[in-house]
Amino acid sequence: MRKCVLVIHGGAGVVPRQEMTAADAEAYREALASVLGLGFRILSDGGTSLDAVQAAVEALEDCPLFNAGRGAVFTNAGTHELDAAIMNGRTLEAGAVTGVKHAKNPVGLARLVMERSPHVMLAGEGAEAFAKQEGAALVPQDYFYTERRWASLQRAKRVGERTAADEHGTVGAVALDVYGDLAAATSTGGITGKWPGRVGDTPVIGAGTYANQRCAVSATGHGEYFIRYAVAHDICARVEYKGQAVADAAADVMARLSGEGVEGGVVAVTNAGDFSMTFTGEGMFRGAIGPNGVMTIGIYHE
Amino acid sequence: MRKCVLVIHGGAGVVPRQEMTAADAEAYREALASVLGLGFRILSDGGTSLDAVQAAVEALEDCPLFNAGRGAVFTNAGTHELDAAIMNGRTLEAGAVTGVKHAKNPVGLARLVMERSPHVMLAGEGAEAFAKQEGAALVPQDYFYTERRWASLQRAKRVGERTAADEHGTVGAVALDVYGDLAAATSTGGITGKWPGRVGDTPVIGAGTYANQRCAVSATGHGEYFIRYAVAHDICARVEYKGQAVADAAADVMARLSGEGVEGGVVAVTNAGDFSMTFTGEGMFRGAIGPNGVMTIGIYHE
Repeated sequence: MRKCVLVIHGGAGVVPRQEMTAADAEAYREALASVLGLGFRILSDGGTSLDAVQAAVEALEDCPLFNAGRGAVFTNAGTHELDAAIMNGRTLEAGAVTGVKHAKNPVGLARLVMERSPHVMLAGEGAEAFAKQEGAALVPQDYFYTERRWASLQRAKRVGERTAADEHGTVGAVALDVYGDLAAATSTGGITGKWPGRVGDTPVIGAGTYANQRCAVSATGHGEYFIRYAVAHDICARVEYKGQAVADAAADVMARLSGEGVEGGVVAVTNAGDFSMTFTGEGMFRGAIGPNGVMTIGIYHE
Repeated sequence: MRKCVLVIHGGAGVVPRQEMTAADAEAYREALASVLGLGFRILSDGGTSLDAVQAAVEALEDCPLFNAGRGAVFTNAGTHELDAAIMNGRTLEAGAVTGVKHAKNPVGLARLVMERSPHVMLAGEGAEAFAKQEGAALVPQDYFYTERRWASLQRAKRVGERTAADEHGTVGAVALDVYGDLAAATSTGGITGKWPGRVGDTPVIGAGTYANQRCAVSATGHGEYFIRYAVAHDICARVEYKGQAVADAAADVMARLSGEGVEGGVVAVTNAGDFSMTFTGEGMFRGAIGPNGVMTIGIYHE
């Protein structure tokens, strides 16, 4: 059987190492391990990379520890506006939603956009109307509430300051399946205190999410810069056109962002099974099961 | 003085050559020549590429012949939802709006997003609120009305069919200024009968619009495919990483789309002053003033 790979991230929004309790770190590691197990089982059972990244990202959305789905951050209006995208590297089909307020699993809605609409990207009320029409699971806004994110908004409003944990939360996954096909998916609540209507990099195909026949990428970080640098597509283009190893391509692109003082990270995998988890700044919640079947999980620079 | 270049397009949504009257063709040519003159004067007076592409695209938005601003197509709800983006190649700063209903000049609003918000992309009501706050020129929806586009919607609803002229309308400009800096801007009403909330390629940085220090691109065509192929960024990446001539890079990317049966086109210019107007299908409203100062205008394959 051909090898398969799953790489996930829970965002670069980590608290400084000295503030992370052992219990919290353990909770994050357990959540990441559980999601990796669930997604990899799909791949090892002969499922597609598309199904694996969707299942992994939905599980991360459902987990209140991460800034996506339940546990998403608040806009400056005290609401939740969620963004997500998914892309099939084999066919280049893609789906994305932005500014959705009631879809329990935004990445699942993005997949519906990809498969059941003539469009790639739907925003706001148009996306909500589509979700209703397709029978996607809808929840009231309180479903997304967590005390911790509400406190972050209050702090951001009070001191006009956001911590890395408020800024860089996102979840994502990339996978290679036994058929040699790649996929990527990403989901986020965005940035604490963002303006209503703000579209970050997550649902922008080529910025936060991209997959083709050669490489798949999901990003996390200060989204505006990830859009400007077309991060996900740029990594794929470097691998394809410059022949760079995926780890080098990811490191070079992240170094450019680092030069602008921007923190964040990416997970990426190629059709050869090479993968990378690259980040600048303090850390990135991340994990992988590589072609050798070994699971690695990390939060900070090891 | 260093050379400057301006290249514009009025969309790949041309009627078949045999249906184009001499008077209509003349009206399009005159409009394109007038916009080129206006934009190029900014460049030759020492203005920036950013100012030139904005002025050119605003003039195209104001002209009811093209599918952007006044003259935009209708959604399937009988409304207008406008998308636009602008990008500064020197700094990689970018601004974009999607689903705006009242901004007279969406590309001007995109520039305000770039310069006066912390974000790159704003959607729907968030974008409208920002427009109000910044004092952007607002108009009622009737301002965008044209009898011709209304008839297109009725025909699309009646026969379930769209013509190229309904599908591929967009306007855009790329420029190189005397300082050696590039910029790109694009604006559109989207596709006739599109779903409310649909985001096309125009405001997706990397898809319909991209500029860096090496190359600037503005695209027109079936937006969903332009997003999936990250057309604008892919052309820039081929020029930078593969060392392709811009005309070859544009031709290769358009050939991939053509292979999927997708029509459309791009205008592109490099920091060396090489430029390209490349399209598949029947034609593309287009024009350029190159480094030699000569104006060329075209509609069909010549």
